[in-house]
Parts: sequence; C-alpha cells; structure tokens
Amino acid sequence: MLCSIVLLYCCSSAGVLSQLSIHSRHGRECVSPCFSLQQRNNSTSPKIKVDLDNSTGVAVLRMQSPPVNSLSLDFLTEFCINLEKLEMDKSCRGLDIITLPMYGKSPERCGEFWKAVQEMWLKLYGSNMATIAAINGSSPAGGCLMSIGCDYRIMADNPRYSIGLNETQLGIVAPFWFKDTLVNTVGNRAAELSLELGLLYSAPDALKIGLVDQLVPEDQVLSTAQDTMSKWLAVPDHARQITKSMMRKQTIDKLLSNREADITNFVSFITKDSIQRSLRMYLEMLKSRKA
Amino acid sequence: MLCSIVLLYCCSSAGVLSQLSIHSRHGRECVSPCFSLQQRNNSTSPKIKVDLDNSTGVAVLRMQSPPVNSLSLDFLTEFCINLEKLEMDKSCRGLDIITLPMYGKSPERCGEFWKAVQEMWLKLYGSNMATIAAINGSSPAGGCLMSIGCDYRIMADNPRYSIGLNETQLGIVAPFWFKDTLVNTVGNRAAELSLELGLLYSAPDALKIGLVDQLVPEDQVLSTAQDTMSKWLAVPDHARQITKSMMRKQTIDKLLSNREADITNFVSFITKDSIQRSLRMYLEMLKSRKA
Amino acid sequence: MLCSIVLLYCCSSAGVLSQLSIHSRHGRECVSPCFSLQQRNNSTSPKIKVDLDNSTGVAVLRMQSPPVNSLSLDFLTEFCINLEKLEMDKSCRGLDIITLPMYGKSPERCGEFWKAVQEMWLKLYGSNMATIAAINGSSPAGGCLMSIGCDYRIMADNPRYSIGLNETQLGIVAPFWFKDTLVNTVGNRAAELSLELGLLYSAPDALKIGLVDQLVPEDQVLSTAQDTMSKWLAVPDHARQITKSMMRKQTIDKLLSNREADITNFVSFITKDSIQRSLRMYLEMLKSRKA
Repeated sequence: MLCSIVLLYCCSSAGVLSQLSIHSRHGRECVSPCFSLQQRNNSTSPKIKVDLDNSTGVAVLRMQSPPVNSLSLDFLTEFCINLEKLEMDKSCRGLDIITLPMYGKSPERCGEFWKAVQEMWLKLYGSNMATIAAINGSSPAGGCLMSIGCDYRIMADNPRYSIGLNETQLGIVAPFWFKDTLVNTVGNRAAELSLELGLLYSAPDALKIGLVDQLVPEDQVLSTAQDTMSKWLAVPDHARQITKSMMRKQTIDKLLSNREADITNFVSFITKDSIQRSLRMYLEMLKSRKA
Repeated sequence: MLCSIVLLYCCSSAGVLSQLSIHSRHGRECVSPCFSLQQRNNSTSPKIKVDLDNSTGVAVLRMQSPPVNSLSLDFLTEFCINLEKLEMDKSCRGLDIITLPMYGKSPERCGEFWKAVQEMWLKLYGSNMATIAAINGSSPAGGCLMSIGCDYRIMADNPRYSIGLNETQLGIVAPFWFKDTLVNTVGNRAAELSLELGLLYSAPDALKIGLVDQLVPEDQVLSTAQDTMSKWLAVPDHARQITKSMMRKQTIDKLLSNREADITNFVSFITKDSIQRSLRMYLEMLKSRKA
Repeated sequence: MLCSIVLLYCCSSAGVLSQLSIHSRHGRECVSPCFSLQQRNNSTSPKIKVDLDNSTGVAVLRMQSPPVNSLSLDFLTEFCINLEKLEMDKSCRGLDIITLPMYGKSPERCGEFWKAVQEMWLKLYGSNMATIAAINGSSPAGGCLMSIGCDYRIMADNPRYSIGLNETQLGIVAPFWFKDTLVNTVGNRAAELSLELGLLYSAPDALKIGLVDQLVPEDQVLSTAQDTMSKWLAVPDHARQITKSMMRKQTIDKLLSNREADITNFVSFITKDSIQRSLRMYLEMLKSRKA
C-alpha cells in the first residue's frame, strides 16, 4: 500500500482549521477506519487530528492552529509521530507548518527546531507522493514554504487570505533553501521582489505571479483538490517520480550538503538581541490584533 | 553561401504534412533550382522531400509522418543524409523529429537511435543559424523538443493541435537535456508541472506559458515565419551567434559531458519489460484511433 | 547617516534631462542644503548636477546626456567623484549610465572604460541601499543595465520611450554579466529573445515581460518613486540587505572572478575593425537623426 496523494490545508493566521489529507492509493485496505491520532495526545486542544476515510482512501490530517499560529517544535514533533503511525500502514509522508516558534528559546532549542524544519522540507519537497496544497487560509512564512514544497497549489479565492514568505518584514531572513524553493516556483525576479520586501500576496496576486496554481471558491477547495488528485494519480507513478526528482534534486542536495552550516547560521541569527526584540514586537502585535 | 534561417513544420500525429524550410542567405547563388532529395530515396513513400526555391533562397524540407508518427532511426539517418547533401551547397544544418521509435528494438538499436537524437538536438540547439519553428500540426515528445530547440516558435491557432513533452504520460521520462531545454523556454515551474504530468498544451495554452511565441491562423504560419525570418536576418550574424552561444552553451555542454551515461540510462530504462508494455499499449491506442 | 534609497532617472537618447535622486535616511541632518557638484566642474555643460533637499532628505542627481548620449569614461569618473563627495556625508552610493563611449578609443582607454563599467555595476547591483530606477526616457544598452541593476523599476508610460539591451543590433555582444542580470530580471527565455535580437521594448512591452515593474504617467514618475521608496524603507534594513545579497551574490561573484578575462574579451572585440565600422555607422545614424 503506497500513499500517493497528499491534500494539505494550510492554517490561517486567524486560527482557521487547517487540513492535511493523505490519500492512500489502496485506501480500502487500510485497517483503521478513523485514525484519530490526537487521542494519543494529552492536550485538550490537539494540534493534529487524522481521519482516514476508507471509502475514498483519503486520510485527512487537520491542523488546528494555536494562538498566534505559533506552530513550534512540539507541533513538528507531534506531526512526525502522527505520520510515522500512519506510515505503519505505509500510507503517508511528513508535512508541516512552521511559523514563529523561535522566540525566547535557547540556542539548543532553536537548533533542534530548525533541524526539524529542514527535515520536514526535505521530506515534503522530495516526496515520491504527489502532493497538493489546498490552501483555505492565510499562509505566511512556514505555511507558504509548505505550500511551495507541494506539487500543486489550490487556494481559496477569499480576499482575507494571503500567502508569502514574509520573513523580511519580521526582520529575519528566509534561508537559501526557502529562497531556492520560491525561485523554482515563481522565478528569480518575483522571488527577489517578494523576499526583499517580505511580501504577502492576496489570492489573485499569488495566482498572477504563480505562487499558487489555481483559485476556487472556498467551499470548492477540497473537491477541486480531489479532482486534481485524480489527474495526478492517472500519470504513471514511476515516470512522475523520476521526473519530480530530476526537477528538485539539485535544490534538495544543496541543503543536504549544508544542513549544519544552515542550522548554525539560523541559530546565531535568531538568538541575536535585536532579532529577538523584533520577534517579540511582532508576536505582541499579532496578539493585540486578536484581542 | 551560409544558411541562416530554418523554417520547420512539425508533423502532426494525424499524419499532416510537415515542412522544414531552410533559408540560404545567398539563396540566389544556389545551383539546384529544385533539389528533391527523395529522388535519391528508393522508398515509394519518402520520409523527407527538399525543395530549394531560388527566388527566395528558401529550401523547404517536408516531413511526411509515417503511421503512428513513428519517426525512427531510419528517419534520423535519411534526414542527416539529406542535410549533408544540402550542406554541399553550404546551405543547411540538421533538424529532426523523433517520437516513439524505441518500441521493440534491441538495446544496441536503442542506443544507436538515442545517440542520433542527441546529435540532432546538439546541432539544432547549438546551431549558428537562426532557426524558426513553424508548427502546423501537433508536436508531442520529440516534435516539441525540436520546436524548443529553435530560436522562435510560430504555431497554427488550430484547436486540434497540441504541443508538449508528454513522455511521462507514456510511462517514460524526458531526459535531463529535454528538461533543461524546456526550463530554458518556459521557466522552472511551468516545466516542472508540464513534465510531471506529461502535459500536452493546446495552442492558446502553449502561448500562455511561453512554449510557443506566437499564434497565427493556419494559412499564415508560413508567411509569418518568413516575415519573422527577415527580422532575424536583419540582426548582425556574428553578434547574434555569439549571444545565442552564450545563452545555450551551458545547457549544451551538460549533455556533451554526459552523452554516454545518458545513452546507457535511456537504453536500460526503455528496454525494461514494464516500459515496453507501456509503449506497446500507447502505440496500439494510437493505431486504433487512426483506424 | 546612511543613504537608503536611490532614485534614478535614466537619460533619454534624445537628450532629455535625467535624474538620480539619492535619499538619505537621516536627510535632515545633512549639512549642505544644496550641494551642486557641477560648481566644481569647469564644464559649461556639466554632465552631473546634485541637489540635496534637506526637507525630504533626497539628493537629486541630474544627468544631462551629451550629444549622441556618449556617456564615457569622463562621465563615469565625474560621476564617481561626485558620489565620493556626497559620501563624505555618508549619504550616497555610485550609479551610472554608459552607452557607446568605446568608439575610436585605444585598447588601453577601452580597458579602462570597461573596468569602470564593471565597477559601477558591481556597486549598483550589490548595493546595500534600496535602489529604484525611475525611468523617464529611453534606456538602451548601459541605461538599461543600470535600470536592471536597481531593485525596482518605474517607467514613464510614454510611447516614445524604449528600453533594452540592444547591443546585438549594433553588432556588439552584451557580456555575460549583462546577460545574467537580464536573465535574473525577465527569465531565461525573454532574455534570450531580447539579446539575440537586441530588442528595444516599448514601455508596455517592457512591463509585459517584466523588464520594468510599473508604468505611470510621465509626470508621476518621481512621486511614484518616492511612494515606492517609503515602502522599501519600511522593511527592516538588515533583513532586506541580507536577502538582496543572497539573491545576487552568485551573479556578482561570477564577474568578480572573471573581471580581467571580461576586460580582455571586451577590448579585443571592440577594437576589431569590423566592430569599429559598425559603431561608427551607428553613431553617424544617431547624429543625423538629431540634425
């Protein structure tokens, strides 16, 4: 049983429910009709909930964003555990959302976190599965990274939603592999402008520069993703996988040979007093906006 | 006498007549008013027919696609002989169309064929001549490769025609230099989507992603190509050639230093039982469609 | 006092006044209310005039193009002296316009000139300042290079203005770093077409391929540039600068490790009899057009 399709619903910064659907090619063979991983989780507000629908072979992984969207190392860890559990059915791969979990953490904690982010991206961008991002919320920073790590992006045509690698706006810098993924998606110039200004794009603007592939009414995001899924599943797996690897290998190899330096660089940057001040201000701004 | 422009009519999978026009800068000096190479050809259904019009200095090379468009090593060879003959007038360079000639062949035959395909692409993509693809038919796979190997692409605005590197759909994989040529033409993201799904684009969609440069009514493809030709001929040859080389050298060098590995890779892939089954099914589907 | 924004008005080949505005982040601290560098200049027709407006913190650097727009080594030198003077206020960086100053010069002079062009581009493309090109005239060749060396391009929507790296039309070849800058701006395919044909784009066409970012009525070029400037200044400097460097470093390093070879190549090419003939014809054509 090989998992072939991932549907992913990126979380909204307003805390909107996010979903990640994992499609098993041979879903009907799945043993667990409703595999709710959060039941293993002591948290009363579980970060992740997974339901595998045997009739469609689609496992829906829901990501409930915590306040100020601070999806941290905890989330990454929980996410990975969940995915490993699903992988016991050989039906899944790792995905994630990261946003701003590096405020007020020790260098060790930051390094650990960043390694987890790298791991998530390496697995997602290099996944043999066809991966489709179904974006029904805003996707700043890590949410955007996760989206552009997929094979195809469908976004809700909702004027309140935005998407982008906005790190620069927060005084931090998207690392080279965020940049490479963005360049691969929207080209060098749009990536340059986007990263230098830390732009968040409205859905129509995101479509215009190619940051997403398709806009649909919000209530059709899931069904469109499922229709798109069928199209991708109709392509011979082996040829598609080799082709995908050919397209992405160089970008992935670049991080693989620079992981440690990238972690060191991230930690030394993020633990700077000035950066921490900048992040604190940003988090407070987000909190006050919600209040 | 130096040949400066190539007009190329890609063959339709429906067997529509395809043409390759070779323009001699000093056409009026040409010795042979109508240089019909197929007269040297014993075949009663010649694959290639060349006519050199002295009044315009344009040699028209017509490619009549055989059933199921299986333009094989035979075609490549005949094509090269024809071009060598034309080169005796110092008026031409090599071009080709390849589609699906690697079904049911021995590994040696496949290797020989693939080397010829490489040769064709190296000559075309690196040609000092200005090369203009005038596409009046569908251009899947090798036909598309030939088109994107040219300097400019004019396509008939006919809803029945499509163009694309659709190898993935057949269960095979476009090699890295097909991919590089496509990336150079439409950018990384459009190439990725196109190759992962093996997409064939309608003429308007091809224009939209930049796979072709211009659409014109079918009966104006040739005249538009000739007008475009004049524009290209007005640019100083030397500067244009150095510029073209600067743009394409890196891509060409990459194949040059990997030819043997690329052939080995192609042969070992294409002779796999599973791939041969997939190709047989595709050929049968094409045959039944024509029947 | 750190200079953060550069406004640049590219010169028109028709001799239209061109302006370069240099914005000081802490302009109000500036000592010189009107810093007219041309007063140091014996020329009765100064090439460059700088006025620093204390109320806005914007220093306006005006470039008056001489006949046939032959902005030469003299101009580059004068420009650099002016900028050094402004830098005494720590408020500025170097910029330039080069067009066709290499006709009829000795190899030594050509080499010296080319080195100055390299220097200008290295400083501009790698500048820590946000740089905005406000284009209120035609920007062929070096003018275009200067524009695409900036971070953002605003062009007057005037049908008489064009922009492009048109070197090929003159029988010369844009060097690899012109090409790299253009590829980074408009992508590989548009750059290829543009460079092979030496195309000059009308304002709308330039917008379409991404050679400029925005068109505005001619009388709004400056105000739009100033509005845009505010947007860029709102982004944390440090993050923007690191991001810019990440985007451009590879391209800059490529020239840095090939400067001598690039100069040698340029000089040997430009001093060829055939090229000099071609340039003379071009200059004469420009002169007769003005007469």
